[in-house]
Parts: sequence; structure tokens; C-alpha cells
Amino acid sequence: MMTTRQDCQALDAADTLAPLKQQMALPPGVIYLDGNSLGAMPAATPARVQQVLMQEWGQDLIKSWNTAGWIDLPTRIGDKIGRLIGARPGEVVVADSTSLNLYKVLTAALRIIRADAPARTAIVSERSNFPTDLYIAQSLAEQYGMQLVLVDSADELPALMNDQLAVLMLTEVNYRTGAWHDMRGLTRAAHEAGALTVWDLAHSAGAVPVDLNGADADFAIGCGYKYLNGGPGAPAFVWAHPRHADRFWQPLSGWLGHASPFEFSADYRPAPGIRRYVCGTPPILSMAALECGVDALLAAEPLGGMAALRQKSVALTELFARLAEERCGTLGVTVVSPRAAEQRGSQVCLALKAPLENASYAVVQALIERGVIGDYRAGDTTRLAQVPHILRFGFTPLYTSFTDAFDAVEHLHQVLATEQWREARFNQKAAVT
Amino acid sequence: MMTTRQDCQALDAADTLAPLKQQMALPPGVIYLDGNSLGAMPAATPARVQQVLMQEWGQDLIKSWNTAGWIDLPTRIGDKIGRLIGARPGEVVVADSTSLNLYKVLTAALRIIRADAPARTAIVSERSNFPTDLYIAQSLAEQYGMQLVLVDSADELPALMNDQLAVLMLTEVNYRTGAWHDMRGLTRAAHEAGALTVWDLAHSAGAVPVDLNGADADFAIGCGYKYLNGGPGAPAFVWAHPRHADRFWQPLSGWLGHASPFEFSADYRPAPGIRRYVCGTPPILSMAALECGVDALLAAEPLGGMAALRQKSVALTELFARLAEERCGTLGVTVVSPRAAEQRGSQVCLALKAPLENASYAVVQALIERGVIGDYRAGDTTRLAQVPHILRFGFTPLYTSFTDAFDAVEHLHQVLATEQWREARFNQKAAVT
Repeated sequence: MMTTRQDCQALDAADTLAPLKQQMALPPGVIYLDGNSLGAMPAATPARVQQVLMQEWGQDLIKSWNTAGWIDLPTRIGDKIGRLIGARPGEVVVADSTSLNLYKVLTAALRIIRADAPARTAIVSERSNFPTDLYIAQSLAEQYGMQLVLVDSADELPALMNDQLAVLMLTEVNYRTGAWHDMRGLTRAAHEAGALTVWDLAHSAGAVPVDLNGADADFAIGCGYKYLNGGPGAPAFVWAHPRHADRFWQPLSGWLGHASPFEFSADYRPAPGIRRYVCGTPPILSMAALECGVDALLAAEPLGGMAALRQKSVALTELFARLAEERCGTLGVTVVSPRAAEQRGSQVCLALKAPLENASYAVVQALIERGVIGDYRAGDTTRLAQVPHILRFGFTPLYTSFTDAFDAVEHLHQVLATEQWREARFNQKAAVT
Repeated sequence: MMTTRQDCQALDAADTLAPLKQQMALPPGVIYLDGNSLGAMPAATPARVQQVLMQEWGQDLIKSWNTAGWIDLPTRIGDKIGRLIGARPGEVVVADSTSLNLYKVLTAALRIIRADAPARTAIVSERSNFPTDLYIAQSLAEQYGMQLVLVDSADELPALMNDQLAVLMLTEVNYRTGAWHDMRGLTRAAHEAGALTVWDLAHSAGAVPVDLNGADADFAIGCGYKYLNGGPGAPAFVWAHPRHADRFWQPLSGWLGHASPFEFSADYRPAPGIRRYVCGTPPILSMAALECGVDALLAAEPLGGMAALRQKSVALTELFARLAEERCGTLGVTVVSPRAAEQRGSQVCLALKAPLENASYAVVQALIERGVIGDYRAGDTTRLAQVPHILRFGFTPLYTSFTDAFDAVEHLHQVLATEQWREARFNQKAAVT
């Protein structure tokens, strides 16, 4: 029997996590399914940022590095993020951007390999990994005389777990399809092959349970502005397994990664542990906003934390995928994300069958005009393994309801059934992922 | 005849730049002489940041990358900073931190040298350069098989302008002493020797007139949170001479430095010109605050711009240095900054003669308790060329008055004459430079 809107309202009424949504300042009338690109704003953020401005900067000025604890923000927020990703206190710092943190940890990994297993020259990743990861890996592969080997499908990975493999570098949840890698199994396989792993948690931190220590991963990085709700361009985070953290300098050896930055010594002496992964002076306004975003997620801890959020996320994405097929299947909609929950992160991607596939962008625009905000990612139809254009919908369990999922599908149905997408305004460039 | 407080009030009354101070939200009763460490807050900043939060992020969400122009902030603010440092539109971008931007441009310089003059292996700088610059240079010297050669005095530089010199890397105005290098002359000498120059403008952008193109410099970087008033940890900027900008990838090849980031291509193709020096997604809250800070400086343009600000800065620092000697010389105070205006940036450093030299920190604390905020930088008495402990006072001409300078000296006189520093609270660690 078809799920009704009343059924979804009942699910929302029974949802113990539903009150968490009140922490977020979402605009009225909007169904926001793009928190995997830019998380929504916590209601607490503006007052906190205002406090940093008016009191800490405006009144207390330079003193606030100490009195307001600015200098400790990288580790203080890092420890909070650690609770979401299976890292212990002191193992995570917030710093710079995801791209820059990848540069740091991938260099560290390559330096370890060069010292311990110099014959290994392959950095393996997916062609569908988020491009910035590939660009940074390209840069480092060239510097270190390595090869960047890209696979079109995760099925190709086992064959590459060999004595050439230096580093397996994957984004745990694929930014396009939402496909969720098995971090534990792939890390074990990479280790058995004698290699190291670098995990990008951009689409998993705050979205799915992550257990870095449990998976025995080597290095990880992640993004502050997606599921962590840190605000546009929020600083990113970085984790190194303690067995690696002290082994090498990371190359971006800025002064705040020094063991004693306020000695103003001319010689670099890296701080012990993860603090050496801090580089320059952190952007405090953006750091303060990130802390509010992480706090909004940690508010779920008494309600079951990431495990409970994951349970809701699975229910939301299952519901959306099923309704999309039931209501819009005959209108050309297919589900591109893995249908098995254990292989899927917290997003659902749809594609449109021929002859509608080139209408995908217009359909997303028509949905946005109706207040249903998802996004579009162009495919690549020029290659043998064709990648479809996709309609991408993120389901952030912190602030998405079952009724939101139901209504989104109804809007999609109407856009397709009435061909409203033919009138959609084409007034926007692609948004930042 | 001794300058009186009335004389200083008359100078303020005649100062056509004095109204610019009203742009800044300074706390009452404070004489802020630490804008060379953390610039004061423009009064316009909180409302602008609030707009980014409440409207652009909170309401418009992901759309704001386009509709609010977030995606253009690195170049838009870069162009504004360009007007302060003798760069043309399109030559500057705002990105990341000073340390990271130094990593980018120093790598670019070393790649050029490696291609054009591989026998050159010396990166020359000053031991008293700000440490993060030295740490980044250390990292790259190791990677590129170069030597980092540090001088104790600028007098040693001419002898190093030889066929070993790869890159001359200097901070234009020394962060400790305020000594101002001759960018034009040193760049010419380095070029005549066949080398490149990298200039850190952390203590010169917004403080003294800079003419990068006029000096024919090669690369430059600078800080957003000192004289540019961008807020704690504000993003930094980077400039490359157009003859170099397209020549090599910079190694921090993040997606927003790609020629077409929204193609999501797996292959890195650097953007033409300076835009390739952008790396990851910029922290928008901190970027918005930085723009307010730069705008506060650009408000001086109709009043004579950096030339007029420099004229006032010279008058302020001359006054302060002279009064410090006249009023406090017999109490042990000496001026450490160059006394010739053309060799001095916008700060004055004092030292205390024996037996008071180890009281320097306490004296700064006692001044802070009186509302006169300068800072202390420890010296190094372990080396042959002894570096004194210093009391550092920045004179940001945008918001410092002649009466401020007078009053600061009077407070210093009282702290020393009454030995009030013996009671100063030692409750603060060194602040972030």
C-alpha cells in the first residue's frame, strides 16, 4: 500500500530526533535537500558570531587570543568533531580547507611509503572522486614520482591491492552517487597489501557513523560546511592515526604547527601529534561558526548520537527512493544511488531516462522554484563507462523530516507530469558542492 | 621646546585623515597600538557579517554562491587590495593564510629557478623574519634540495647577491623592529644577480605605500588581519607578476584554482593568471569581514590614499619616538626601530637598558592595564648578535591620533617613574603577532 502524507506525518510525530530541527534556522516554505553541499545555519550561530565580533574582537582585541581561547579553537573544535568520527581527544584539529588538509596527509603518507617501501608508486583513487582530491593527488604524484591510478568502479579496487600500491585514497561516501565505501574492509585489504589509506570524510562526517580507530585507518580529512553545518567555506579537519602523527613533518609547516610558536624561533620544530597539522593563523569568525554547527550535531548525543541519526537517515532515504520510483518511475525517474542501505550514505541521486535525460538541470531548477532545493551534477556521456546527469538530494537527518521527503517527491511528480521544467529559469550556474 | 598635549590636539584638529577613525569601533578609554598584530574592527563589519549570516546563508543558502557573489570574493577583494600595493586589477587574489600563500609562491619561484638556473641553490632571508616564513622556506628548501641562508643584518645581503642566489625572500617591514627594506633596490640587485624575489607584505600592506609593479617584484603575499583590519585570522592575499603567473602550477592545486571548477573534471587544468593561486573553498564569513576592513582603508583614497596615510604615519612615529626619548630616555628607554623615517614602517619599538631589560614584559603589561595596548617580543641574548627584548607599538594611521601617541608616552613615563611595572599582573601568554 502506498505511503501517504499522513503516514509521513505519523513518522515525524514518532521521531525522537525531530526536535533537533528546531536548532536550525531554515527559511519558511523551503524543503532543503542540499545540506550535503552547504549545511543549513544553526539558529545559535548569528549570536555567537556577533559575540566574537562585538566583544572578543571589537572590545577585547588582541587579548582574545588568550582570554577568549581563540588559540585553542583548532583543538577544541577538533575534539568535538572527533566524537563524530571515532577519534580520541587530541587526535583531530580543525585547519584550513579540505584540499589543503589532503595535501598535508597525503604528503605524510607518501613520505612514510618512500621511507618504508620505496618501490610502491601507485596512488589509487576513483575517477568519480571529488575533483579537488584528484587535483591535489596529481600535484603530489608529480612531486613524488608516483602514478595516480583512477578506477571507474569500486569493483576494480581489489585487483589493485598489490605490491605497487602506495596509498589508497578514497572519499568514503561518493559526492555524486552517495555510494558508501566499506572503510574497514578496504583499509584491511590495503594494509594486507602493505599500503596506507587516506579517507576523505566530506560526505560522511555527521552523515553516517564513522569509526576511524575502529577501522584502523591511517589518515583522514573532512569538510566543515556540509553535514557539520559550519557555514560557507567553513574550515576543515584532519586526523592522523597516532602511529603516524609524529613520524614526519607535514610540508605546510606554518608557525601554529610549531611545538612552541610563541618562542618565535627561527627553526621549525613540529608540535607533537596532530597539532603539527595546523599551519597559519585560523580564521576565527569562521571557526566560531563551525563550532556552533558541530554543537548542533552533538546535541543528538543524548538521543543516540550518530547511530540514531543514521537510523533516521536510512529511513528517510529509503522512503524517498521508494516514493520516487513509485510515483515518478513511469515519468522517467530512476534511482542512481545504491538501493542497499548499507552501501549508501545520506543522499539519494536520481537520473532521468531518455528522452528526458537532458532535462535534468531544468527539472532541478523547477524544483528550486517550488522551494525544493536539491542540486544537479552533470554527467559525462563521452566516455565508455557513461556517467548520467544526476538530480542530487541530501537527507541531513538533523533537520529533514519524513514529510519533507514525501512532499519533495510530490513536487517532482508535478514538475514532470505537467512538464513544468520546460519553463524553468536557467539563471544559475552550478553551485559549489 | 617640548611638545605638549595641546600641540598634539592641534595636530589632530588639523589632520584631514582624522575623521577616518570614526569608521572603527574602538573600545572607549583604550589607546590601541597593536594594529600591527590584530587590526581594530571597522564599525561596518558586524552588520555586514550579520547580513551574510541571516540573509545569504540562512535564507538564500546554496544559491548565494552565485546570487551573493561568494564565488567572486577572492578576486573582488583581491582587486581592492591591489589598489593598496601597486597591483593591477586581476593580479591579486585573497586565499588561505600568509603561510600557505608563501608556500605557493615560493614553490613557483623555485620551479622557475630549477627550470632556468638549476645551479642556484640559495634561498636568502633574515633570521629575524617572521618565523612562519622561515618554517615554510625550510620545508621547501628540503624538498627542492636548496639551502636556506639567513642573515643577521640587512648589511650582509649585498654579498649574497651572487650566482648562488635563487630567491631573495624578505618581509618588507620587519615584524619586530619595524625596519623597512628598500623593495625596489633589493629587487633590482636580486634581478641583476639573476635571482627572483618574494616579498611578504604582512607589515606593509595598508601601512606604507607599496608599488609591486613599480618595483618589478616577482611574487608577494600578505596578511589580512593586521593593517587591513580583516579580523582575527582573516584570509591572506597573494600576487604574482604577470610574467610568472601562468608559468607553473602552484602545488596546492585545489578545485577553485581550476580553469573551470564547475566542470568537475578529473584532470587539473590551472586557471589562467593569479586565480590558480586560489585552492579550496574560501571561508565566507571571514572573507566578508576582510572586505569591510579593506574598504575602511580605501575610504582614504579621496583624502590622498596611502601617500597621505604614510605622511601621517611618519609624523606619528616621529612624534612617539622623539617623546619616548625626551620623556623616558633617562628612565632607561631607547628606540630600537630605525630613526630615519625612510627606513621605518608604521611601528616604533623600544627597549629598556640594563638593569631594566628583563622588566620589558612587565612594563608592557602595566601599560595594558592602563589601556595602552602594545605588545612585547622576547629577544635572544644567547647569540653573538644579541637581540634585545622589545616593547612594540604599532601606529596605524587610519585610527591613531597624535594625542594617542602623546598619552602613550605619558603612561610609559608613569609606569617607569613609579615602578608600577613591579605590580603588573603576569596573566597573559604572548599574543599572536
